[in-house]
Amino acid sequence: MSKEITSRAADYSQWYNDLVIKGELADYSAVRGCMVIKPYGFALWENMRDALDKMFKDTGHVNAYFPLFVPKSLFEAEEKNAEGFAKECAIVTHYRLIADPSQKGKLMVDPEAKLEEELVIRPTSEAIIWSTYKNWIQSYRDLPILINQWANVVRWEMRTRLFLRTAEFLWQEGHTAHATRAEAIKETEKMLDVYADFAENWMALPVIKGIKTANERFAGAEDTYCIEALMQDGKALQAGTSHFLGQNFAKAFDVKFSDKENKLEYVWATSWGVSTRLVGALVMAHSDDQGLILPPRIAPFQVVIVPIYKGDDQKALVGKKAMEIIGQLKALGIRVKYDDNDNARPGWKFAEYEMKGVPVRLALGARDLEKNEIEVARRDTKEKRVLSMEGIAVYVNGLLTEIQSAMYDKAKNYRDEHITAADNWDDFVKLLDDKGGFISAHWDGSPETEEAIKDKTKATIRCIPLRNKEEEGKCILTGKPSSQRVLFARAY
Amino acid sequence: MSKEITSRAADYSQWYNDLVIKGELADYSAVRGCMVIKPYGFALWENMRDALDKMFKDTGHVNAYFPLFVPKSLFEAEEKNAEGFAKECAIVTHYRLIADPSQKGKLMVDPEAKLEEELVIRPTSEAIIWSTYKNWIQSYRDLPILINQWANVVRWEMRTRLFLRTAEFLWQEGHTAHATRAEAIKETEKMLDVYADFAENWMALPVIKGIKTANERFAGAEDTYCIEALMQDGKALQAGTSHFLGQNFAKAFDVKFSDKENKLEYVWATSWGVSTRLVGALVMAHSDDQGLILPPRIAPFQVVIVPIYKGDDQKALVGKKAMEIIGQLKALGIRVKYDDNDNARPGWKFAEYEMKGVPVRLALGARDLEKNEIEVARRDTKEKRVLSMEGIAVYVNGLLTEIQSAMYDKAKNYRDEHITAADNWDDFVKLLDDKGGFISAHWDGSPETEEAIKDKTKATIRCIPLRNKEEEGKCILTGKPSSQRVLFARAY
Repeated sequence: MSKEITSRAADYSQWYNDLVIKGELADYSAVRGCMVIKPYGFALWENMRDALDKMFKDTGHVNAYFPLFVPKSLFEAEEKNAEGFAKECAIVTHYRLIADPSQKGKLMVDPEAKLEEELVIRPTSEAIIWSTYKNWIQSYRDLPILINQWANVVRWEMRTRLFLRTAEFLWQEGHTAHATRAEAIKETEKMLDVYADFAENWMALPVIKGIKTANERFAGAEDTYCIEALMQDGKALQAGTSHFLGQNFAKAFDVKFSDKENKLEYVWATSWGVSTRLVGALVMAHSDDQGLILPPRIAPFQVVIVPIYKGDDQKALVGKKAMEIIGQLKALGIRVKYDDNDNARPGWKFAEYEMKGVPVRLALGARDLEKNEIEVARRDTKEKRVLSMEGIAVYVNGLLTEIQSAMYDKAKNYRDEHITAADNWDDFVKLLDDKGGFISAHWDGSPETEEAIKDKTKATIRCIPLRNKEEEGKCILTGKPSSQRVLFARAY
Repeated sequence: MSKEITSRAADYSQWYNDLVIKGELADYSAVRGCMVIKPYGFALWENMRDALDKMFKDTGHVNAYFPLFVPKSLFEAEEKNAEGFAKECAIVTHYRLIADPSQKGKLMVDPEAKLEEELVIRPTSEAIIWSTYKNWIQSYRDLPILINQWANVVRWEMRTRLFLRTAEFLWQEGHTAHATRAEAIKETEKMLDVYADFAENWMALPVIKGIKTANERFAGAEDTYCIEALMQDGKALQAGTSHFLGQNFAKAFDVKFSDKENKLEYVWATSWGVSTRLVGALVMAHSDDQGLILPPRIAPFQVVIVPIYKGDDQKALVGKKAMEIIGQLKALGIRVKYDDNDNARPGWKFAEYEMKGVPVRLALGARDLEKNEIEVARRDTKEKRVLSMEGIAVYVNGLLTEIQSAMYDKAKNYRDEHITAADNWDDFVKLLDDKGGFISAHWDGSPETEEAIKDKTKATIRCIPLRNKEEEGKCILTGKPSSQRVLFARAY
């Protein structure tokens, strides 16, 4: 075996780190809390980004780019938003370095080059964007504005983990402006649907759509909608959020429009985002103790062909046949890699591509040529079959579809088996400790109770599911009356 | 007319700003020196980025992502590079804001949250990348590394101009690592060719390939290759650079590899980049006093269809025909916009899309339907023709190709007419003042002379053209012997 990885049973957290590092998705960097996204991980992110970008454009959105910096006076304008992010802001205070007179060859911050106003590196862009929208919006004719931005943001987190929580991360943030409350809410819900569609149909990741409680709401939002996924250790992960911002930012930045009756109104807003955190979710939802398992629709390579040969003559013969098959696969739009690197043996390559989660591996040897056969191995089930080369591309194409849907079904079965109702406190705590997953339980609706439950168990309310069933019951902690169950879980 | 723009003759610089603002490419922002790239400008940049990205991938490169921050100790490791960028660095010194006790609702930098080591916001990423490559490179088997990154960078420029020079800008930076000097030089030259190919065949922008003198070299490079373009005011613009970095960064970060003989050697490096500055070049090279003129291959919309109608019945009829034509155009891969917005009249729309530089405008009226005709207007020459609707899509497709090449030819003629030889100082100064463009002249090869010429005339040596003709002569300023002419110009 090329690289050892820790098993999930031995140390789940180390298993995750091993996959990310040894699967070559990312690496630690010299900067505290920041990671390097390696080419293989970035290719995965590019596929995710491109699929999402197309979905945004298909729903009428356009891309733009706003500054990295938010002047402090703009940052603090929407008070709740500012309060929510102030604790974790990277702040630019100076704009020049000079030679350090006390240390040859070293530089120091030039005290003469202090900014008049400090600049916050965007942790999110509502402030800089709404200060701009003020100049773009006068009349109802200027609405709606449906803009998305792909960008890096910085949140100075104290505890970081590759992809899941990094000081700098890549994301997209949609920021829309609307003439009516109803239209803005519709947009918020539409983008939640887009995220759920992407998670389920591209990432093979089943998600629950819901609304956050006040405690878990985005700072500055009236309502935060979310999609919640479940990882293999029974912990939940927030995979995307879509915020109805009401008129909070319009009021903070004085953005009004004249409606058809020429009356001045504040503009309604939404914002919504997903980030490179999704890569972490993908890794944790599907992979196994041999390595990554990537869904075909977003895998950088969907198929790898490993040739097996002795000597240059066989290599040439096998290579020729491989090129033929590659041509057929590419004609079907399949992303394929041919690895005829002489520096590694087939067994090493098999383990390497298992580690990297390539959905389908084809092994093609000199003897196979004679029999017109080829070995097909699928990564998710590790099933191997020897098949005729006749029609192999069409077979592989169908197999990729099958893998995509099998991965989703497997994750969904696991998720569904891990939504458990609890009707009293002891069961609730026991379920959290022994089984994990989502616990469906009654809650009295108060932030204080939610906070108390979190303090006692580390579980939070992940969401109040959309179209939740009304049901009379008693709060799991306080026994006070409740009209619906909500989903609790420990979470990333 | 919808929007007035200043003419080139009246005020070239204002003309440029008008085009960028009124053509809706970009807007000023609340942050000093930073701009907002508006959706239309960003769509243009996306098309440029996607074309370049494909060219990078076709030449074997992969994308990755490295941190925004460079710890000061890494930043200063390569001394020349550090010295070159120290004067214009945004520096993060703190990581938290707190409530300002002296001003209710305001925030202040928390003095307790001072970073132990300051972080420089990347002005370029050699330092952070080579400190990472150190961990990735042990043996010749790990080479070459052919990585590109699309990112934002920050250079605290004192005088900024939309697209041409902004404190924050978007770019790509390739950073490659090689086992031999020859291979690195070959890579440097290959990427210069990619840039020239892109500029000429996508942007319709003729460029001169050359090498920078020591004065104009990238800080930390052994050689800087460049492509230089000419703007309509006779000033040159550096449109892309490709640097042979020698072993400078490998030595600064101690990056060695063991070669096939197991001998330890320093790694050879290149870096190369183009930025959103290219959008500025595009605007200045092609546009006229009516607005932008965009080359079809990268225009956000290649064709706009403006319907002309009275009342809903006519609108429906014209719309039906337009949809038919749009279907035909899209089948040929043409990007087309249909503008049936009732809030603006056709004349206003004509001016608007002229301003925005859409290469081809089709106007379709109710009367045209009867005659089965359509009006075709090309933006570059403003020529209009009324044509049969039969085969119109194929005609338009051919017209787009013709426009692309006519734009290139026009820019190339202008450029070629503005390369003038000067053989004495008076002619040199007169040419610079009266005609502009590139002046081909002898130079004695010394940085001091180059500096003196710059001080006297504001002209710099744009490049020593590749495959330059050897020719005996005398330096334009000092009269000292020279073996070749170089290209001088005033530049952006």
